[in-house]
Amino acid sequence: MRVDVLAVGTELLLGQIVDTNSAWIGEELAAAGIDSYEHRQVGDNLERIVAALADQLTRADAVIVCGGLGPTQDDLTRDALAALAGVPLERDLAIVDHIASLFGSRGRDMPASNLRQADVPAGATVLANPLGTAPGLRVELDGRFVYAVPGVPYEMQEMVRTHVLADLLARSGEAAVIVSRSLKTWGTSESALAEMLGARVDAQTNPTIAFLARGIEGLVVRLTAKAPTRHDAEHLLAAEETELRALLGDLVFAVDDETMESVIVDALCERGWTLGVAESVTSGIVGARLADPPGASEVFLGSVASYATDVKRSVLGVTAEHVVSEECAMQMADGARRVLGADVGIAVTGVAGPSEQDGQPVGTVCFGLALAGSTPEAVTARLPGDRVRIRQFAAISLLNLLRMRLGDAR
Amino acid sequence: MRVDVLAVGTELLLGQIVDTNSAWIGEELAAAGIDSYEHRQVGDNLERIVAALADQLTRADAVIVCGGLGPTQDDLTRDALAALAGVPLERDLAIVDHIASLFGSRGRDMPASNLRQADVPAGATVLANPLGTAPGLRVELDGRFVYAVPGVPYEMQEMVRTHVLADLLARSGEAAVIVSRSLKTWGTSESALAEMLGARVDAQTNPTIAFLARGIEGLVVRLTAKAPTRHDAEHLLAAEETELRALLGDLVFAVDDETMESVIVDALCERGWTLGVAESVTSGIVGARLADPPGASEVFLGSVASYATDVKRSVLGVTAEHVVSEECAMQMADGARRVLGADVGIAVTGVAGPSEQDGQPVGTVCFGLALAGSTPEAVTARLPGDRVRIRQFAAISLLNLLRMRLGDAR
Repeated sequence: MRVDVLAVGTELLLGQIVDTNSAWIGEELAAAGIDSYEHRQVGDNLERIVAALADQLTRADAVIVCGGLGPTQDDLTRDALAALAGVPLERDLAIVDHIASLFGSRGRDMPASNLRQADVPAGATVLANPLGTAPGLRVELDGRFVYAVPGVPYEMQEMVRTHVLADLLARSGEAAVIVSRSLKTWGTSESALAEMLGARVDAQTNPTIAFLARGIEGLVVRLTAKAPTRHDAEHLLAAEETELRALLGDLVFAVDDETMESVIVDALCERGWTLGVAESVTSGIVGARLADPPGASEVFLGSVASYATDVKRSVLGVTAEHVVSEECAMQMADGARRVLGADVGIAVTGVAGPSEQDGQPVGTVCFGLALAGSTPEAVTARLPGDRVRIRQFAAISLLNLLRMRLGDAR
Repeated sequence: MRVDVLAVGTELLLGQIVDTNSAWIGEELAAAGIDSYEHRQVGDNLERIVAALADQLTRADAVIVCGGLGPTQDDLTRDALAALAGVPLERDLAIVDHIASLFGSRGRDMPASNLRQADVPAGATVLANPLGTAPGLRVELDGRFVYAVPGVPYEMQEMVRTHVLADLLARSGEAAVIVSRSLKTWGTSESALAEMLGARVDAQTNPTIAFLARGIEGLVVRLTAKAPTRHDAEHLLAAEETELRALLGDLVFAVDDETMESVIVDALCERGWTLGVAESVTSGIVGARLADPPGASEVFLGSVASYATDVKRSVLGVTAEHVVSEECAMQMADGARRVLGADVGIAVTGVAGPSEQDGQPVGTVCFGLALAGSTPEAVTARLPGDRVRIRQFAAISLLNLLRMRLGDAR
């Protein structure tokens, strides 16, 4: 089965917005084992939307159209589907009620323009949108299908997952649900992962196993299971996850929506430990990340971004001669622990460039960790890339070090 | 003149990479006054690349193809252009020399696979790539043109700017250079900007004036001038910039590659002042941004992310009862100045949610500023959006407040 994508919006052509929806849909289709050979963007122009869809349907079994379902005169996807099918638009009173109730629940009157969103090409199937006013549409044309979904990413994602993928799989003769699980790994390369998991990747057809690169956030091992029910699919995923974890060990830092920092916050909560940070080269990136998860305030006390050497000395009590050194990293970690009144202190100091510092080349980064009642520890790494990348890399490296030290929470 | 875009790469369809190149090219074409009505992505498949190009050329005067110029068997754009033109590929010895010298300058031997990059469709024009091994190509087909450029964004951007736009404009009969200037504004809405500048936007044809949204980073007013020479274009831009600045005043915080933080660092350097930060709700975002510009270490001393209330009290000396208050923001700013030994202290405290704090609703943010020898000042704002957006918005709001207070550096 081949499913192509059409994204509608003049703002995409003008570069005012980057079309991330098509890539997201492409990833979902691939995970579901559905081919997608062409993505296309056209502007808010009726004739060009109709022509693009007609052309795509000569090759694809279905096309997913994103965008153009809003309430303004520029939103032409409904009209394009009606024109393509050669049918009129008809007002759907159930949709009118849904939109009016959404406005009502926000204490506002429904503008008349929103009535456009209740216009449906005759014979089309309405796909409920629980998150917004724009319903989706499914239109059949000579045994091929067009699915229209909103352009707002979170509405689009919900509707593709709920309505479109299940419908496509059912039509492809596979009465199956597709469920994915992402094992997030950090600390190894794609080729090393491929080597570790090669035998299982080759052996597995359900769940399938794919690698997705996430830049400095690491690599995701994505399992995708097809089964008659969600329960069966979850069961397949759990069994395969167990096998993969035996091979990957603590390279896996999180699953699905968990993040490096949410895992750390959870692990600290479990132990009842508080955390303080001192950061030089990252200058706040670590602190900003640690405050991100809900519940962070239970365990994360704060971070001293001691960018200037004087601040390292006066605030954190660093006495080391060289500020890019393991000695300095340990003193910073211990200082953070002491000054912020935490059980655990972590620290990072290094050279992000453009030029060397303290006789150390660009990319040299020292990490420190201090636990109340223990001798501080430190480790040094050489990180690749430019200034921006080194700083980001240093931040996640420090977080991963802490995660490893706390022991995997699972 | 109509110029469409084709991005080549299976990784785009699989969602492993988001195609940002097409949006970038679309923005450049729009700035140059060239229409672009369709962008398309296809995979690394010879037949589909050829079919897509042939189809696009039935409507567009030219197509810009991104990607598929690398050295591997998957890189098929050269082959597609040869097939489309019905000509063979011929090895270009000047390109072989260029690639070999690039490898030589890095002390490496040229892999044999890179010779593929020297294969040129007979009759095609080679577009020099100063930044990489993949040259660009221009092929004429019945009076229409295909420009092939690499998929690596910075190589693509350089080649589109240097070769493609100038060539397109020359062919459209306009022997002109195009030069743009971006006035970055912060603190007003697009509709308010449109109202302030409406008369000039309507009156101007050269330079043209366009608004580009940049999310929490504000709105860009982009001027684009066409003239016979770069000098003439720069002259047109300077004259219009003067007019617009008279209307916009200190809403303009930066020009072109400048950022909010680089402007602040420059202004502090000029005055010989050092800066210290205390941040609660942003927890490091402000410090991370201020360390970004080269030269930041001259003036930026550090930031105390005092996430926990105890840290505000013990490290910064806050005595205010309520931590989301102007009193607290002033005490934090003064504490940052004092503890970090700076001339200027700035601070931010607030409620990012998900729930209210200190009796203050989500979105309430207080900003403080303390100058040595002056009474600290504070201001309160209600910021919109979710937790992530409120934190980012609070950070840039604090930076903008400091910028305004330092006086525009210009």
